[in-house]
Amino acid sequence: MIIREIRVTPVAFRDPPLLNASGVHQPWALRTVVEVVTDEGLTGLGETYGTLDHLEKVRSVAPALLGLDVHAQNEVYARVSALIGDPPSPSGVPTGERPIDRVYSPFEVACLDIRGKALGRPVADLLGGAVRTAVPFSAYLFYKWAGHPGAPDDRFGEALTPEGLVAQARLLISEYGFRSIKVKGGVFPPEREIEAIHALRAAFPGHPLRLDPNAIWSVETSINVARALDGVLEYLEDPTLGIPGMAEVAAAAPMPLATNMCVVAFEHLPEAIGTGAIRVLLSDHHYWGGLVRSTQLARLCATFGIEVSMHSNSHLGISLAAMTHLAAAVPGVTTACDTHTPWQDGQDVLAAGALRFVDGMVPVPTGPGLGVELDRDALAVMHEQYLKCGITTRDDTSYMRAFDPSFSSRRPRW
Amino acid sequence: MIIREIRVTPVAFRDPPLLNASGVHQPWALRTVVEVVTDEGLTGLGETYGTLDHLEKVRSVAPALLGLDVHAQNEVYARVSALIGDPPSPSGVPTGERPIDRVYSPFEVACLDIRGKALGRPVADLLGGAVRTAVPFSAYLFYKWAGHPGAPDDRFGEALTPEGLVAQARLLISEYGFRSIKVKGGVFPPEREIEAIHALRAAFPGHPLRLDPNAIWSVETSINVARALDGVLEYLEDPTLGIPGMAEVAAAAPMPLATNMCVVAFEHLPEAIGTGAIRVLLSDHHYWGGLVRSTQLARLCATFGIEVSMHSNSHLGISLAAMTHLAAAVPGVTTACDTHTPWQDGQDVLAAGALRFVDGMVPVPTGPGLGVELDRDALAVMHEQYLKCGITTRDDTSYMRAFDPSFSSRRPRW
Ligand SMILES: [Mg+2]
Ligand SMILES: [Mg+2]
Repeated sequence: MIIREIRVTPVAFRDPPLLNASGVHQPWALRTVVEVVTDEGLTGLGETYGTLDHLEKVRSVAPALLGLDVHAQNEVYARVSALIGDPPSPSGVPTGERPIDRVYSPFEVACLDIRGKALGRPVADLLGGAVRTAVPFSAYLFYKWAGHPGAPDDRFGEALTPEGLVAQARLLISEYGFRSIKVKGGVFPPEREIEAIHALRAAFPGHPLRLDPNAIWSVETSINVARALDGVLEYLEDPTLGIPGMAEVAAAAPMPLATNMCVVAFEHLPEAIGTGAIRVLLSDHHYWGGLVRSTQLARLCATFGIEVSMHSNSHLGISLAAMTHLAAAVPGVTTACDTHTPWQDGQDVLAAGALRFVDGMVPVPTGPGLGVELDRDALAVMHEQYLKCGITTRDDTSYMRAFDPSFSSRRPRW
Repeated sequence: MIIREIRVTPVAFRDPPLLNASGVHQPWALRTVVEVVTDEGLTGLGETYGTLDHLEKVRSVAPALLGLDVHAQNEVYARVSALIGDPPSPSGVPTGERPIDRVYSPFEVACLDIRGKALGRPVADLLGGAVRTAVPFSAYLFYKWAGHPGAPDDRFGEALTPEGLVAQARLLISEYGFRSIKVKGGVFPPEREIEAIHALRAAFPGHPLRLDPNAIWSVETSINVARALDGVLEYLEDPTLGIPGMAEVAAAAPMPLATNMCVVAFEHLPEAIGTGAIRVLLSDHHYWGGLVRSTQLARLCATFGIEVSMHSNSHLGISLAAMTHLAAAVPGVTTACDTHTPWQDGQDVLAAGALRFVDGMVPVPTGPGLGVELDRDALAVMHEQYLKCGITTRDDTSYMRAFDPSFSSRRPRW
């Protein structure tokens, strides 16, 4: 099972104007599809970020992996490490993810896909076996404009008020059956977002609610918001920047704090654990170094009483499949995971049918490997879109400033 | 790859009178061989403790695992857990190992053996791939009598003095090529054991040295010994009982402290890490719940700057093969692991040839699975020995008291 060929294909898909603390999503979201092909002709799929600097890193390591067996993950990691370098990541800032783990991840997922295909077993079986037949995801609500400036409104419509968010929740829940709700906050002053959470609580009394302002609040503001939402939020996600600030908030907040910002690499865990900064870790195999390392992360978190759930960036179906296999195989993942899937709105590089939502859950694919197959026509179309869209990196802030030159993503804003 | 049959066979092999803080090894050491057979007729091997209470637990769960796929390890664990129960283990005492992890372990190893055989790949490949072609082990020295009372002397001879230990080290090193030395202490007053360590240092100036008194010393004695051996020991293993005491010693000792006694389950790690009690964890897949969990443990330890090496009880070749695959696949295992193999002195349930020592290292078996095969005649002989030897549990203390009624294993003794 020797790696003979690796294909790296950047793609772009239309993305709605989703607002967040950094600005607003650009009209195109970028991803990179990695195909690993073995000497027996088995192809494995991985998916990762599409920003140009990352794409170039992924491309640069691919030749060094040719000739390796798909089982030789320690060696794959070592070669990625040697080429990418391994600077310790700064603690507590959104850029603290380790480049090596981000670059390694799609290759690891693709190798697991190949191993599953060779065995005739789902990837979940390579991670300890599925403990659930379907993985729950949350309705991921965004404040948003009706459409990108200068373009027609999208079908999701505007959501800039509590009523708008409630309507958006109704739409996503009616289409996907979600049983949990996550709100991307950090867009409006906290009072306004508190009001929106209360409106959602009233409209969906049985749905666990989460709020994620992407660390745009001061410690003081975070504590005030936490107290105002006592008994309403399942958890509060990244209210403020950095582990020390999160620890201060955690000591005063009545609900658990979750993060995908202040703990994004193994080396951040000792400080976060030592200071009691978090009670929920939103893991993400795209930057935690793949699926096996994510199971190791889950064991570590379980040891320290930290719950594990799952973070999401804009992604396609390969990642949704990988996330589903992983979440299915980690017994401790019992709350809904995040996904941007609804905002992808049917666009995908995959042949339709392998992935679907039933009552807010994705049934674990039962086919070999990830259980999904590329639609090569769709891949070609989305690669063309990548080449033509003119976007090569993600920059929500600059895009926002095109419409609001005074916009700042400085933290804390409130 | 469905489990259709499980065979559980207790065996006994001759063991020399090895002295330790608890007493002296009985004339027979007990182990249990677990064979898991799938619907395709593949057989996987596991090895675990042979004491009767444990043997009965292993036998009691076996029927519940029939019908499961060998990949469904989460489910295997859940069924073992449901039958064995899961009392939290007390912290810091030698009995704090979790019964469920001890019972689960041989089944997990056997399932990995089957998966490797089905794939035609070594077990190390199911753990991330070997990063070394051979695993270093240490010469494990014991104070010992010349032979069991009333029996002829064994070929290793007496070792009750520094000169005796040096001679024993020469013998083991000449036969196995070991490049590290571990001394099982806790037998004589600390001054005498310090003297022995100095004699070994003089005789083997290039061999890293370790001393393990099995927690028989007080905190004060531990600190005194640690200071007396400054610059001589690679690490000091379990000088005193319990995490709080180990933390006190660690704060004053010039060398790292290692343990296989105060941290023997995941739930002990938070306290040990929080108090800085240990810098080396001697892992042991027999009680940490198998090989995959041991890789997760290794990741956790790496995260907190704790080195991982490997503990050993009296064992046979199935366990030596499993330990070798595991140590080969964990990049951080860079120092010599423990093994009792020399004291087994050729007795084994395995066909000869798959395992050997070269320059103190065991080359990682390259055959499918664990890479070893049962010798059924040898298994039958050793099972007969089990039935006839009259020993059903390990009790070094009672055996010692047969010759020295005043003997006590009370801790601290010194
Ligand atoms: Mg977040
Ligand atoms: Mg020990």
